[in-house]
Amino acid sequence: MSKENFLGVFGHVAVDVICSIDKFPRPNTCEAIIDRRTEFGGTAGNMAVFAASLGVPTALASLVGDDFPDDYMEFLKDKKIDLTDLKTIKGRRTPSVIMISDSSHNQIGFVDQGAILAQDKLPLQTHTIDSSKVVHVGTGRPDYSLQVCKRARKMKKLVAFDPAQEIHYVYDAHSFSNVIKEADIFFCNESELEVAQKYLKLKRSKDLLDTVDMLIVTIGKRGSRILTSAGEDFEVPPCKAKKVVDTTGAGDAYRAGFYSGMRKKMDLAECGALASAAASFAVESFGGQTNLPSWDDVRRRAFG
Amino acid sequence: MSKENFLGVFGHVAVDVICSIDKFPRPNTCEAIIDRRTEFGGTAGNMAVFAASLGVPTALASLVGDDFPDDYMEFLKDKKIDLTDLKTIKGRRTPSVIMISDSSHNQIGFVDQGAILAQDKLPLQTHTIDSSKVVHVGTGRPDYSLQVCKRARKMKKLVAFDPAQEIHYVYDAHSFSNVIKEADIFFCNESELEVAQKYLKLKRSKDLLDTVDMLIVTIGKRGSRILTSAGEDFEVPPCKAKKVVDTTGAGDAYRAGFYSGMRKKMDLAECGALASAAASFAVESFGGQTNLPSWDDVRRRAFG
Repeated sequence: MSKENFLGVFGHVAVDVICSIDKFPRPNTCEAIIDRRTEFGGTAGNMAVFAASLGVPTALASLVGDDFPDDYMEFLKDKKIDLTDLKTIKGRRTPSVIMISDSSHNQIGFVDQGAILAQDKLPLQTHTIDSSKVVHVGTGRPDYSLQVCKRARKMKKLVAFDPAQEIHYVYDAHSFSNVIKEADIFFCNESELEVAQKYLKLKRSKDLLDTVDMLIVTIGKRGSRILTSAGEDFEVPPCKAKKVVDTTGAGDAYRAGFYSGMRKKMDLAECGALASAAASFAVESFGGQTNLPSWDDVRRRAFG
Repeated sequence: MSKENFLGVFGHVAVDVICSIDKFPRPNTCEAIIDRRTEFGGTAGNMAVFAASLGVPTALASLVGDDFPDDYMEFLKDKKIDLTDLKTIKGRRTPSVIMISDSSHNQIGFVDQGAILAQDKLPLQTHTIDSSKVVHVGTGRPDYSLQVCKRARKMKKLVAFDPAQEIHYVYDAHSFSNVIKEADIFFCNESELEVAQKYLKLKRSKDLLDTVDMLIVTIGKRGSRILTSAGEDFEVPPCKAKKVVDTTGAGDAYRAGFYSGMRKKMDLAECGALASAAASFAVESFGGQTNLPSWDDVRRRAFG
């Protein structure tokens, strides 16, 4: 018998390079790096690590390169994440983002999809789908994500679709509408919601509830909003962090917190409160997989 | 007794990230990485590896961070380079350059000095000076480089100064004139020569021979020029590569080839021919430490 997971996460596992500089260089010049950090990241990596820390049995499905760092792999194993479907692809690079910020907090980013592009050529990673109750389909190739959603739905799993920033540059109206039709929950932020409505030619965000049963929209430091096809529509207030150091991974922690409540069969408002609480821990330190709270930490911050 | 080296090299040992993209991103946008390579680099690392491959007993003095890759360290050991003075500095980063090229071959670079900045705080790395006949002082902190030159000269070593691109942004007229006064040989390219003359307020490049005994100017694919205070002044023709793939490290290979001739007590024209031949191997593959020729390879290409 295969392991029973509550959550199966599809998406990027990445090694991100975060640099700060004084000003962006003109072409054919160099600029000194003031600070440079390498972070374990990727939305799926972040989410799986947060969920596992909250005690949610989690499987992670992704593709990395043969340059994938041993210490990242050890870290994921240490969190007891089911890594059956975390595959190393020979001759490919681990996905990576190089993010460069100037002294005025403007950023430029360089996104390397690396091994994840091999999704187009590989068979479906079925273990993560089949062993989980909830399948969270994050970033990745649209055709692959569609197959994941279809199998998950056929296996009667709860399916969440969460293309994140890739809605802007990986999806188009056609591929997006194909995938969201196979999903039960849609996660997005405000700018992603706009694009989703444009792709589906919908005037109101509520109209998305003709396609999915639940719409979860994060609205930055103002918290989030949850709408359901059953007519629920409420705002989830943000949870106060001790200090805001770096918002990387806040959205991923939010999702992990949400699922930790769902696993305990809590109601939507409680799931939202746990989500906000988990996010508030994520922003208190650099990186998307640091300052990991336990279930008790998050529960206390959510419910006092 | 300590090991006898012919060449002692001071400068950067770095891990470089080379990316190609379509076009440079505007602030607050991302751009997809088409290709990304991580290369063992740093001018001192490149030079030491080439020199050792040519059979020159070589010591390497540099500072790296605790993120220094094991495989780079193994590679340097495998080349039998004397690594007594290659120090890992806790809590510092390995020097790195992130170089990004667009589809029109324009580049922007982000330079992380990392651990090398600790030179300002650490005692002199004397082994590399004391065990070598020739001390090559490349990139690094000006005050530290000055101390290296002074000790090397006191120990009656032949001293070469080679600040490379750092002449533009690390040195000023004062620090540059202090260091070059302690050197016997000055290496540069044409734009660095201009800056050197400006710093020293010299009208003609030949006037540098009032300060050093030998001036070696690389002039890209047109070869190089060698001038001495004894009145020699000749051009070294370039050596034809089988194909030109990437010019990274060509200058470092040139210097290694030059020293390989000097070690065999060859005359300057012969040293120059070996230098050009070594450089021609460096440009035939990506990276500054690949396609390493043996002494026989270089000798054959230089002299037929």
